Amino acid sequence: MDVLKTLQTQLATFASERDWDQFHTPKNLAMALSGEVGELVERFQWLTSEQSERDALSDEDIRAIEEEMADVLLYLLRLADRLRVDMAAASRNKLRLNAEKYPIAEAKGNAVKYSRRDK
Amino acid sequence: MDVLKTLQTQLATFASERDWDQFHTPKNLAMALSGEVGELVERFQWLTSEQSERDALSDEDIRAIEEEMADVLLYLLRLADRLRVDMAAASRNKLRLNAEKYPIAEAKGNAVKYSRRDK
Amino acid sequence: MDVLKTLQTQLATFASERDWDQFHTPKNLAMALSGEVGELVERFQWLTSEQSERDALSDEDIRAIEEEMADVLLYLLRLADRLRVDMAAASRNKLRLNAEKYPIAEAKGNAVKYSRRDK
Amino acid sequence: MDVLKTLQTQLATFASERDWDQFHTPKNLAMALSGEVGELVERFQWLTSEQSERDALSDEDIRAIEEEMADVLLYLLRLADRLRVDMAAASRNKLRLNAEKYPIAEAKGNAVKYSRRDK
Repeated sequence: MDVLKTLQTQLATFASERDWDQFHTPKNLAMALSGEVGELVERFQWLTSEQSERDALSDEDIRAIEEEMADVLLYLLRLADRLRVDMAAASRNKLRLNAEKYPIAEAKGNAVKYSRRDK
Repeated sequence: MDVLKTLQTQLATFASERDWDQFHTPKNLAMALSGEVGELVERFQWLTSEQSERDALSDEDIRAIEEEMADVLLYLLRLADRLRVDMAAASRNKLRLNAEKYPIAEAKGNAVKYSRRDK
Repeated sequence: MDVLKTLQTQLATFASERDWDQFHTPKNLAMALSGEVGELVERFQWLTSEQSERDALSDEDIRAIEEEMADVLLYLLRLADRLRVDMAAASRNKLRLNAEKYPIAEAKGNAVKYSRRDK
Repeated sequence: MDVLKTLQTQLATFASERDWDQFHTPKNLAMALSGEVGELVERFQWLTSEQSERDALSDEDIRAIEEEMADVLLYLLRLADRLRVDMAAASRNKLRLNAEKYPIAEAKGNAVKYSRRDK
């Protein structure tokens, strides 16, 4: 079983043992995900892009950021479980769609086009 | 190689081929992640919790939600790559911390305590 | 002078006295705004819609929510100052656009159309 | 009547005419606010801090950003209306709290302390 499905199953057990399924509706989980991403963004908001790079961050920063990133993944997988979404398949599919949407020749080094077409 | 690392490597190649590493600073990727989660939240904002459940959503809704969820995972993995974070290890670690933070006996069915201690 | 412009000026003085203009680029302020909204969303994530109504919230909840809402407005006005955006004019303009976009007869009680056209 | 209360009243009428109060629970409005901030963040995500400044943005960019900012304010005021929060008073209060939290002498030019204490 892949790591995503293993984590997903562990999270389902975790929630079930605590009787939390009642709170874990897809709507609520989308909100929780959004809250966690807000916490991740706060870690970077006053840093320059250079200061946000791995080698410029302290070990303490990295540890905190890792925890926020894990929170994001855990809520995303909890949501996937509740919606019966296969995250690995969905991600492979999206990567394929992106390859069609941004052909190398056109997208190369093009931030403006990138940002526009990404809307 | 696990599915997360495979996707992460594919995304790194995707960005590199398009000369997008210049845009993919951790700061910018955290913002992009936040934008994608915003799009996911929009899918649920006017639904009741019941309407947000899998069986209440149309196939078209599910397809759109799957795409937004994939976008979240892809940006998260792109960020993990740039910060050299092992997402599988970080997630297993966080799950362990959560098990300590929310002992079953205390957390059982307790939304208020849950939400409070989650801060 | 209207309340928005008064607050905006006070915030500009506040930042200038602390030499924070260097951190308050529009990009960084958009991130800070996003972080604050994340904190606001966290206040509501495990509540049902009924539990999120004023009369169901404790005084302590309300006080905390008020603070988060103020943070959102303050960063929004700080951003408006840096981008020289007239928030009152922009809001009146948007309200007018919304009136055209959602004619009463069509939009009445229509969550689906509402949510679709809001994209 | 100040501009915030005027807008708030207009929004209440707007929602009431369309029978949208049923969708405008505080929980749902917090989500909608989060979605709008996500759209605002997307406007800045691939820009450098310098490119995000007013004079570096095109008129078209500014117009789009103004609309997103107005959306944020409108949902914030709609939420204030539903929660009976006086946004002007709450903001003045928060500004006063911030002045205590960040004394000029200590906070001056200090991004790290700023970002830490802001948590």
